[in-house]
Amino acid sequence: MAPAFQKPFIGIGILGLGVVGSGTVDLLQRNQAELEKKIGIPIQIRRIAVRNLHKQRSVQVNPALLTDNPYEVLDDPENDIICELIGGINPAHKYVMHALKQGKQVVTANKEMMAKSGHDLMHEAAHRKLDLLFEGSVAGGIPIIQPMKNALAGNLVQEVVGIINGTTNYILTRMSKDMADLPDVLLEAQKLGYAEADPSSDIDGYDAQYKIAILSSIAFTSRVNVNDVYVEGIRSLAQKDIAYARELGYCIKLVGIGKRLPDGRMQVRVHPALLPVSHPLAATSDVYNAVLVKGDSVGDVMFYGRGAGSGPTGSAVVGDILDTCRNLKAGSTGRVVCTCFEKRDIQPMDEVETRHYIRMSVQDRPRVLAAISGVFGDYNINIEAMIQKTIYGRQTDIVWLMHEAPGKAIREALQIIQNLDVVVEISNWIRVEE
Amino acid sequence: MAPAFQKPFIGIGILGLGVVGSGTVDLLQRNQAELEKKIGIPIQIRRIAVRNLHKQRSVQVNPALLTDNPYEVLDDPENDIICELIGGINPAHKYVMHALKQGKQVVTANKEMMAKSGHDLMHEAAHRKLDLLFEGSVAGGIPIIQPMKNALAGNLVQEVVGIINGTTNYILTRMSKDMADLPDVLLEAQKLGYAEADPSSDIDGYDAQYKIAILSSIAFTSRVNVNDVYVEGIRSLAQKDIAYARELGYCIKLVGIGKRLPDGRMQVRVHPALLPVSHPLAATSDVYNAVLVKGDSVGDVMFYGRGAGSGPTGSAVVGDILDTCRNLKAGSTGRVVCTCFEKRDIQPMDEVETRHYIRMSVQDRPRVLAAISGVFGDYNINIEAMIQKTIYGRQTDIVWLMHEAPGKAIREALQIIQNLDVVVEISNWIRVEE
Repeated sequence: MAPAFQKPFIGIGILGLGVVGSGTVDLLQRNQAELEKKIGIPIQIRRIAVRNLHKQRSVQVNPALLTDNPYEVLDDPENDIICELIGGINPAHKYVMHALKQGKQVVTANKEMMAKSGHDLMHEAAHRKLDLLFEGSVAGGIPIIQPMKNALAGNLVQEVVGIINGTTNYILTRMSKDMADLPDVLLEAQKLGYAEADPSSDIDGYDAQYKIAILSSIAFTSRVNVNDVYVEGIRSLAQKDIAYARELGYCIKLVGIGKRLPDGRMQVRVHPALLPVSHPLAATSDVYNAVLVKGDSVGDVMFYGRGAGSGPTGSAVVGDILDTCRNLKAGSTGRVVCTCFEKRDIQPMDEVETRHYIRMSVQDRPRVLAAISGVFGDYNINIEAMIQKTIYGRQTDIVWLMHEAPGKAIREALQIIQNLDVVVEISNWIRVEE
Repeated sequence: MAPAFQKPFIGIGILGLGVVGSGTVDLLQRNQAELEKKIGIPIQIRRIAVRNLHKQRSVQVNPALLTDNPYEVLDDPENDIICELIGGINPAHKYVMHALKQGKQVVTANKEMMAKSGHDLMHEAAHRKLDLLFEGSVAGGIPIIQPMKNALAGNLVQEVVGIINGTTNYILTRMSKDMADLPDVLLEAQKLGYAEADPSSDIDGYDAQYKIAILSSIAFTSRVNVNDVYVEGIRSLAQKDIAYARELGYCIKLVGIGKRLPDGRMQVRVHPALLPVSHPLAATSDVYNAVLVKGDSVGDVMFYGRGAGSGPTGSAVVGDILDTCRNLKAGSTGRVVCTCFEKRDIQPMDEVETRHYIRMSVQDRPRVLAAISGVFGDYNINIEAMIQKTIYGRQTDIVWLMHEAPGKAIREALQIIQNLDVVVEISNWIRVEE
């Protein structure tokens, strides 16, 4: 056990003063007196490493705290907790490892680092009985990692499903409300600062991929290799899909999904999905995030709030700092250990059975429906609902809603269907979640 | 600091094997192997005190564990954690105090005990550096106390607003969906087991009163005296109110409300309220609970799930047991101390400013509106919307939606209005929350 904490304060060293760093510093400064009362010891920001010492900041900081040398933060013996808020893998991973090897507690909001190379960091922290907390890495200010590790830990989690990327949720909300197409909405989101100049990490689903990998690792007590997580972004979504989905009683959201399977494997995937409008996640609009956890005892629990931004993510980082402070005071750092004690495989997407929405464009001729539905029949795919709309006179949209079928059957059936000479194109196919 | 934990297992003693006790025992037994892996030490149920040894139970329990003498649970040195799941003040409070005085950790789901006499128990636990955890006392399986004490602890909480009584929410949902009146729905709820034979604790708001007292104490770091919490139940709600509210774009929910005021005081109150249908809590139907927390950094965060029942509340109790087990292992019990370090007064209801919905029955005569709105004018109460519907020929319903006004102004204006000879009765007045 660690010796009792003897210092008159807990020193915080911060790497990075961007969006999350500013929110963290602002909150620590603003509520300083209150936080000291909650923890019973003063919390002092000792040093902040930034890339550019002279940049204008949105938060008031004593310039003497700033340095452009991260090792002045990492190596300062007065810093008990290092907050890594620079993001990305390099050099963040190197800095965090350096901090741990010197016996420092670490708080991070770095989803990419935790998802891709969290394993050796968690191992190092456990080995040294240090805290390595990362609440801010998923869903911004929404408490989700702490509740899953603590309050819900009695449950075998059956599912964790979330809207965990605010940018795409904003885009899909606007596409739905304004009947707008993706390129226009993306431009608007970029102007508003909700989307990056290079929007790929959000639009193509990688940001959500990191987050669902982290949540599933905790939910199913098995480390998820992020490269094994199927990911499909929202680029192929058309305004039409949203309109047809609405006609069928659904909305379209980019969701991260983790499921425990009876055979011991798990599903972990990110893709657009049709959700019934009555689904608990369906009302999550704009930049809001929500995560639904289904436990074997608690049933459905949902967590909702702002999934990004300075204040919300700063709130999560400070929550982790306070947790670590309490552990430092009690000599109990490292008390919540990594719980990835299983080794589960991820079910391949070909085997994943869901309902499907399929939109295709066909020629307006006799026997078209018979030809297409015959192929579906060959693959044992049952039709639940269908919408046919003629446009341009000789060309017709057909939208199908299919009963549960494995991804492979749908994929192979559509390969055959798209080669039928009456079929102009398979425009889109999207999974349906209940 | 406590010495390292030396025993080969952590012993659990349980008081009460009713709804919550059964859920707790079931979960501890069912997920035993998984929980041991998470905590790193076996968790053993050693003894369970029940009132009737021979009663049929919904959970399979080794009969040798049962005793009808609670002191066989409390005094057994093998029991490290005592779970008090009998409810009520007496003898629960006596047992918990007895357990603490013997140095045992305590987990409870007892809202009434924690709200009414939690103070001396928290004091005793803090003095002895023991855990006294009570996640299950509010909102069943929804993690709300742990997140407020930990992940959200960096925030100054501005508001905590919740639908925290499942029985009344079920009744209001049915009244709204089936256009039914309260007595009929209550009978149905009693048949389904959602309401007690004596429904007063739910219907009259006392259950919600305990819970909002607990949540507000944590949110505003000031112990709330439960007797100071204004409480008004749903008995006076008529089907008509729900219908008129809907016409105005609102639903009616029984809400617990805590607010931090700029002058250092707080509002803590329980009453039916009109919520805009777009309010995040408005979609919370049937027996579900939801709690919305507004923090100065995180913004709005909402927690949603099942607010009662064996599985959900058992999940919360086991979550607390696991937290305590981790503290026992790390020698850090009592690491999260009571944070009621302020002394705030509660604002009297007369001063509380909200918008109001008022329904009255008046005679269908000239100058009625002028007379009534004149009185409102005298009290500086501005009218936002009005509905007038004639029924029975000579009698008319008038429904008013008023702009923000202090409770006192509304109360006094209505006293005068009800004595106007054109006014048959003031049928109801209900606060509006944004």
